[in-house]
Amino acid sequence: MTYRAPIDDILLSLNHGAGLQAAVAAGHLGDYDGELTAQVLEEAGKFAGDILAPLNRIGDKHGIKLAHNAVTTAPGWPDAYQRWIAAGWNAVSGPEDFGGQGLPGALNAVCTELWAASNMAFGLCPLLTLSAIDALHAHGSDELKRIYLGKLVSGEWTGTMQLTEPQAGSDVGALRTRAERAADGSYRIFGSKIFITYGDHDMTDNIVHFVLARLPDAPAGTKGISLFLIPKFLVNADGTLGARNDIFPSGVEHKLGIHASPTCTMQMGDQGGAIGYLIGEENRGMQCMFTMMNQARLGVGLEGVGIADRAYQQALAYAQERKQGRAIGSDSKGSDPIIKHPDVKRTLLLMRALTGAARTICYSTAVALDIAARSSDPKVKAAAAARAALLTPIAKAFSTDIGTEVASLGVQIHGGMGFIEETGAAQHYRDARIAPIYEGTNGIQSIDLVTRKLGAQGGASVFALLDELSIIVKDVEASNDPAFGATGVRLRDALGALDRTSRYLLEKLGASPNDALAGATPYLRLFGSTLGGCALAAEALAARNLDGASDPARAITLARFFAETVAVQAGALERSVVDAAAVLATADAVLTA
Amino acid sequence: MTYRAPIDDILLSLNHGAGLQAAVAAGHLGDYDGELTAQVLEEAGKFAGDILAPLNRIGDKHGIKLAHNAVTTAPGWPDAYQRWIAAGWNAVSGPEDFGGQGLPGALNAVCTELWAASNMAFGLCPLLTLSAIDALHAHGSDELKRIYLGKLVSGEWTGTMQLTEPQAGSDVGALRTRAERAADGSYRIFGSKIFITYGDHDMTDNIVHFVLARLPDAPAGTKGISLFLIPKFLVNADGTLGARNDIFPSGVEHKLGIHASPTCTMQMGDQGGAIGYLIGEENRGMQCMFTMMNQARLGVGLEGVGIADRAYQQALAYAQERKQGRAIGSDSKGSDPIIKHPDVKRTLLLMRALTGAARTICYSTAVALDIAARSSDPKVKAAAAARAALLTPIAKAFSTDIGTEVASLGVQIHGGMGFIEETGAAQHYRDARIAPIYEGTNGIQSIDLVTRKLGAQGGASVFALLDELSIIVKDVEASNDPAFGATGVRLRDALGALDRTSRYLLEKLGASPNDALAGATPYLRLFGSTLGGCALAAEALAARNLDGASDPARAITLARFFAETVAVQAGALERSVVDAAAVLATADAVLTA
Repeated sequence: MTYRAPIDDILLSLNHGAGLQAAVAAGHLGDYDGELTAQVLEEAGKFAGDILAPLNRIGDKHGIKLAHNAVTTAPGWPDAYQRWIAAGWNAVSGPEDFGGQGLPGALNAVCTELWAASNMAFGLCPLLTLSAIDALHAHGSDELKRIYLGKLVSGEWTGTMQLTEPQAGSDVGALRTRAERAADGSYRIFGSKIFITYGDHDMTDNIVHFVLARLPDAPAGTKGISLFLIPKFLVNADGTLGARNDIFPSGVEHKLGIHASPTCTMQMGDQGGAIGYLIGEENRGMQCMFTMMNQARLGVGLEGVGIADRAYQQALAYAQERKQGRAIGSDSKGSDPIIKHPDVKRTLLLMRALTGAARTICYSTAVALDIAARSSDPKVKAAAAARAALLTPIAKAFSTDIGTEVASLGVQIHGGMGFIEETGAAQHYRDARIAPIYEGTNGIQSIDLVTRKLGAQGGASVFALLDELSIIVKDVEASNDPAFGATGVRLRDALGALDRTSRYLLEKLGASPNDALAGATPYLRLFGSTLGGCALAAEALAARNLDGASDPARAITLARFFAETVAVQAGALERSVVDAAAVLATADAVLTA
Repeated sequence: MTYRAPIDDILLSLNHGAGLQAAVAAGHLGDYDGELTAQVLEEAGKFAGDILAPLNRIGDKHGIKLAHNAVTTAPGWPDAYQRWIAAGWNAVSGPEDFGGQGLPGALNAVCTELWAASNMAFGLCPLLTLSAIDALHAHGSDELKRIYLGKLVSGEWTGTMQLTEPQAGSDVGALRTRAERAADGSYRIFGSKIFITYGDHDMTDNIVHFVLARLPDAPAGTKGISLFLIPKFLVNADGTLGARNDIFPSGVEHKLGIHASPTCTMQMGDQGGAIGYLIGEENRGMQCMFTMMNQARLGVGLEGVGIADRAYQQALAYAQERKQGRAIGSDSKGSDPIIKHPDVKRTLLLMRALTGAARTICYSTAVALDIAARSSDPKVKAAAAARAALLTPIAKAFSTDIGTEVASLGVQIHGGMGFIEETGAAQHYRDARIAPIYEGTNGIQSIDLVTRKLGAQGGASVFALLDELSIIVKDVEASNDPAFGATGVRLRDALGALDRTSRYLLEKLGASPNDALAGATPYLRLFGSTLGGCALAAEALAARNLDGASDPARAITLARFFAETVAVQAGALERSVVDAAAVLATADAVLTA
């Protein structure tokens, strides 16, 4: 079972659910006129299906190998990566002054989904490179940009993001890697990092590491962290590669999934110190890292969407093929494909609806980032930046929760075959499980949503969004289209629940923040399902007016199913949020070993 | 991190949630006086923790090997199995006239949970042997019982259950394995079976296979299936082992989890036909197999409970140990254990509450089976049998869904470490995933619940249960204990939703059964969460009256959290059931490749 990019669904989601078309029409995307969107995505879909998808299972089976301080990737991996560079996929939204194509990030967001869907372990490498590009472009010196940025944009060199140490995971401020100032203005770095994705590999001749470390005189915590660029091979003045730098992979993890993606322990300073170059200012590394992390968080959300879509496609194909039993009311002679059984049909619809909702939430985040970067109107820019900030934790956490849920349903559709590794459904289930964890666990995302995003300016960005969503619901109701079923009423209820819950949390945030945090996770879920439900409804409304470019019956059924089955949980989630604090107060009576 | 059987929680659940104590007091369990319960379970807990748990990761890493038509289990496995027999654990509830201890099946149900929690791959072997014992005891001839039953009861020989063929999974009636009558009254069996758990192994000197096959003149479908006993080695008149029979493992599956449990393709008849003996009557094999399957379905539900409890214990220990960040309001100098963070606390409470609810549902099923088997009052017996029949699909499906959900939350609590195989959390996530699939997928369980269980006698057994649950809710309200929070109102709402939804489905079942089936899965979830919520509430009420034998604060917090966070979803599930049919009618517009 191969992967086919669902371009029609994607274009409906991107242009109409996420509002790219309207943003282009309003001139918010600078000189981008939208003409290339479909063509670029079609080509990306082909690359994903033809080149990356066939390597997915090979990578899972072979994994990677570490020997003599160097990682070897799975068969076919380096070759595919060279094709990747040659086809220009690394540079889709890269800065034009450094060789990038300068297309909107939203197009690259779709691509990120396609790479993850076809081959999550492969797509992870460029995902981190893109974060590195962002940080270097935003905070690096001209000199560093001149040497490194073009190579990163093209993908000739890849980037890593090195935060985590054994004692410093979610608590980045606890890191101990040490940086010393050298006489020439560079630094020497000593320490070790864990969980470094693509910390080493054999696909490119150089790797550019972005490492958080602490200067000897730095303040404690996150305010004393600096960001350094540490190349695997030093780069000579003429751009050729020089000496091997003192940063090496010393171990690789044996993981549940994404076997083909090397997860390295990195050792720096055993040979006198890794030579590093400061990015931005000393002790301001966290700000630089946040630039990388927001990009990466959206990217991980898109991994959730991608793996969900892949699991859905595979389950759909199996359900159309596999015959078991005769469906009630069937007029077939023998047994029917299992998709004829209502329970299987319902499960597939749930997978597809969850995937579609998460997709549009992620794309919306990407479009907001584009508007914030490209609009010439400062008010529009600021509103879009606030929107992107609000949506990022939802895009990350909701989509990756969806990713694992849908992958699990995909296994279930396959019955016993789902538990057999050769089928492939189990790989999605294993691969998907990392996404709710890395780039800030989903718990951290929920806390971010409640404290930093809802908590900013009295919830202004939340209530602005709710007003917009309310218009969609009005339009559903005004359509008077019976095909929408209970969509309007379910979404209106959900909006009410989200509004009340937001106000409840805002009130708690000041006086008793732990009471607010107690409900953070169900709040994020409530937000995601309300937002996702409205997004699918907006797409359905748009599809009715698109004159056959998209099938309205399809879009309406999806929106309706999501509203009636997922968004309908809003009331229960509201009550979970509100009730959480009181019961947590006595939790210690239970939580004893 | 090892496993410790939570005996106090288990006793509260078994005696008070599932009503074992009341059943004993009412004389419904024959001569069982309840005295041995705690002692047996304490000992079982020790065996699980000391002998089985340490082999769990070893089994996962080593898996099993097939060579020369024989399976070798993981290091330590055969030895542990011999200790298992010696300690008498195979015979806990086995028939006394064949060497069993004759204890209630409910005690063995608890044991099944403990084996699954400590080592799911190991526990699966005796689970299938127990099913085989049931079928042979109920349907086998005296001669077959004389030769095989004692050895199966002691565990000296193990049993297998062979239904599945490539084209016959959920649709058992499609099987093709062929049986021919031999002159001596035995049969010769030809064909092959897939997914046969412990189809071969090296832990005992014989294996007794229970195989479904079809006679040449048999009617089509499930009415033409017969059950045969096929020993791996023929047994001589004096009980010694004779010739190797013509049934061999020809392949083993490479699976997502339970690596130490061999899943075999079995080949029969390459050397003239496997010698088999009919169990029960010709063409009545499905009835015999249902005896095995009901036992096995409850057992699989208990696997869900066990793996959930194991994942919870591991996550709890990690959260108590792992320090990251400072919790708001904490007065500690450095960072706090992550359990201090409200979101982590909430997640652990959810894991524990889900596990407890599923546990009591499973134990209740076991107690009902015991009453049905042991009561001397025909009315009591019949009511208990109907109760057991009703609860079995819920015990299986709800508990195994819980198993995968809780195992996934367990991975999440561990953060990045959860994705690393050495931690062990990932193994639970992988192992747990089979339970919603085998012994009838959870979709099949939902259909069984709606059509056969709710559908019987106008829903009589459902409404009888609802009446009982309603009394628990009244007692919660009458307690006037503020510690219960919204428990009473949430459970009352849930009961209302379950009642209305049951009536809706009953109405649909006659005229438009596909409309009823469309809502089968959310109906089962609604049933499980309502039942589980009431069960935990009953335990909390009992704990208040137990004078310190159990901590009432603990039980009340759990019941409250479950009611406020899980049972509260009842209204949304009701609406999902009722709305499902209409939207499924247009699903084909979406479900196209």
